[in-house]
Amino acid sequence: MKQLSTFLPPERTLMGPGPSDVSPRILNAMARPTLGHLDPLFIELMDETKSLLQYAFQTENALTMPISAPGSAGMEACFVNLVEPGDKVLVCVNGVFGNRMVENVERCGGEAIVINNQWGTQTDLNTVEDLLAKHPDIKVLAFVHAETSTGVRNDAKALCELANKYQCLTIVDAVTSLGGIELKVDDWGIDAIYSGSQKCLSCVPGISPVSFSDRAVNLIQNRKTKVQSWFLDMNLIVGYWGSGAKRAYHHTAPVNSMYAMYESLLMLREEGLENAWQRHQRGHEALAQGLEALNLTLAVDKNYRLPQLNVVEIPSGVNDADVRQRLLNEFNLEIGAGLGEFAGKVWRIGLMGYACKPRNIDHCLAALKQVLK
Amino acid sequence: MKQLSTFLPPERTLMGPGPSDVSPRILNAMARPTLGHLDPLFIELMDETKSLLQYAFQTENALTMPISAPGSAGMEACFVNLVEPGDKVLVCVNGVFGNRMVENVERCGGEAIVINNQWGTQTDLNTVEDLLAKHPDIKVLAFVHAETSTGVRNDAKALCELANKYQCLTIVDAVTSLGGIELKVDDWGIDAIYSGSQKCLSCVPGISPVSFSDRAVNLIQNRKTKVQSWFLDMNLIVGYWGSGAKRAYHHTAPVNSMYAMYESLLMLREEGLENAWQRHQRGHEALAQGLEALNLTLAVDKNYRLPQLNVVEIPSGVNDADVRQRLLNEFNLEIGAGLGEFAGKVWRIGLMGYACKPRNIDHCLAALKQVLK
Repeated sequence: MKQLSTFLPPERTLMGPGPSDVSPRILNAMARPTLGHLDPLFIELMDETKSLLQYAFQTENALTMPISAPGSAGMEACFVNLVEPGDKVLVCVNGVFGNRMVENVERCGGEAIVINNQWGTQTDLNTVEDLLAKHPDIKVLAFVHAETSTGVRNDAKALCELANKYQCLTIVDAVTSLGGIELKVDDWGIDAIYSGSQKCLSCVPGISPVSFSDRAVNLIQNRKTKVQSWFLDMNLIVGYWGSGAKRAYHHTAPVNSMYAMYESLLMLREEGLENAWQRHQRGHEALAQGLEALNLTLAVDKNYRLPQLNVVEIPSGVNDADVRQRLLNEFNLEIGAGLGEFAGKVWRIGLMGYACKPRNIDHCLAALKQVLK
Repeated sequence: MKQLSTFLPPERTLMGPGPSDVSPRILNAMARPTLGHLDPLFIELMDETKSLLQYAFQTENALTMPISAPGSAGMEACFVNLVEPGDKVLVCVNGVFGNRMVENVERCGGEAIVINNQWGTQTDLNTVEDLLAKHPDIKVLAFVHAETSTGVRNDAKALCELANKYQCLTIVDAVTSLGGIELKVDDWGIDAIYSGSQKCLSCVPGISPVSFSDRAVNLIQNRKTKVQSWFLDMNLIVGYWGSGAKRAYHHTAPVNSMYAMYESLLMLREEGLENAWQRHQRGHEALAQGLEALNLTLAVDKNYRLPQLNVVEIPSGVNDADVRQRLLNEFNLEIGAGLGEFAGKVWRIGLMGYACKPRNIDHCLAALKQVLK
């Protein structure tokens, strides 16, 4: 085996689709002494984290907590708990993460009814309503609020209104939206929602905040079958993360990552949610203006473009990989490649959380200008 | 909402069943700048982590890697990938984690044949052999190498020999054994094994190293049904963690926790695996001698006692919770409560990884002496 030594990563500027730049305050919090996962002081931290998450999600849902694994496990937690074999789920697909939802439904033994929207466009509300009307036995409407693969915002509020009109539950992917754009779980009537730590919360990757409405909790408690995942069974997890005075061991929480999660939520609280949304919008406008000046085109219509994830068409004649490699090697700047149908066609420039600030925007525009000249 | 501020945990001495004390070197590594999960430098780190894990597991299995979630997800990764509906699995239960294996088998649609050993005792080899002979269609033999709930070591080598004799696969829980006692995946012929970061590796909690033999990989690639978990489907994960030049995005790895994982494996490599095993044994002997001097009794027979997890009978008339609370509050010392059948009857004193050193042992014995007098 070759001689190995400690790993000293360079300081990158992370402007891809996540992880985004992590504040030194969060890195510092994470490096504090590890506590036991049942230590009374850690349990206090868990309770405060839940309150802060309720604020971030704008919900009073009691079952609001971070799952001890990345966003894709948060997605799975929502589907395995709410979808039983034979259940019909209407899934709006307009990118990679919508497709992943379909995979989840099918692996739960559910039947996915799929709306395939064109990549780079929003989910069409009329199509959704037609299908909900046609299939009155649809149990869940599932969609991605902010599609990380395309930079498209779906109209979460309107989709939830439709779901409520047709008495469906909703499962919403808020991995890239939480903390970056308007999101109101209670006002919009969302039943199950998951997010990720490493996007607009600017925390280290590895944690997935989730929230379930009382209606969803009631369904989970009265399932006909056991949840297929032991690790993600909310009926068990609630014994550890719930509000009881005595917490039962379920799994060992990633204690230090939870310190980081707490610190990032605290920073969001200090800034204020609306202020954070506005900061993302301002950052986006500055970036968009700069990109335009470089003759670069944003791929997504202004009306449903995500401020925190800017999808840029790669100009013809420009080598995708070369540009990204030069940005990384010469400028320590990471932007994202296209994913799925968009691979090789677009770049994804993230302005998420701590990464959404003038210093980064200026740096990114200057670096792109040099590399593309 | 009450006024919240940054969380400053006290410095505990962690001598419970895990998490164990984390070295400042590991905490420091974890706080380094976050890289993207597809950054070429991070991918190099992933490759080196896999090599170090092969060393720790004593295996040349190509599919050896850390799962991005705690040990219970590592357990689930082994079961959901190897057990298909209708498969028979012989599970040796002698504690909480054996029971969790049964849960996993059943949630995969498998049929669990269960050997219920008395708590605090080893799995009986004759019973195992009788059942393997009686049920030639058993596909997997599953057992816990080091039962964290009872402090019992099962004879992994002998159990694997039996499994190989009867042409079964093996799934082995090495959460508490890896790095603490002898464990040789290739020599013993283990097919699927999972561990945890927060025990004898003394890393932060949240990561689960796993390893699959080529025989297991072959079965996973040729399943009749899709793996029920998208997040834990090794057929997909291998596209990100595999050895190909081009890594495909699957999920976002917990980058900073992986820095910690790497650093902890590097420390194990520097010390040497055999030296680590011997250090745990020496630590155990010193602790056991000290406990005896305090008239405390170890609950597990010397022949199959775990050095890294010492299960101590609570003397009659002593209040379990009071003692643990005083140790925590007056000495910043965490020891473990009993779990399951052992709740209220025993304490579990961990000597795991970085926590297994004379300073901790002396402190623990002195603190117990004061509190019990």
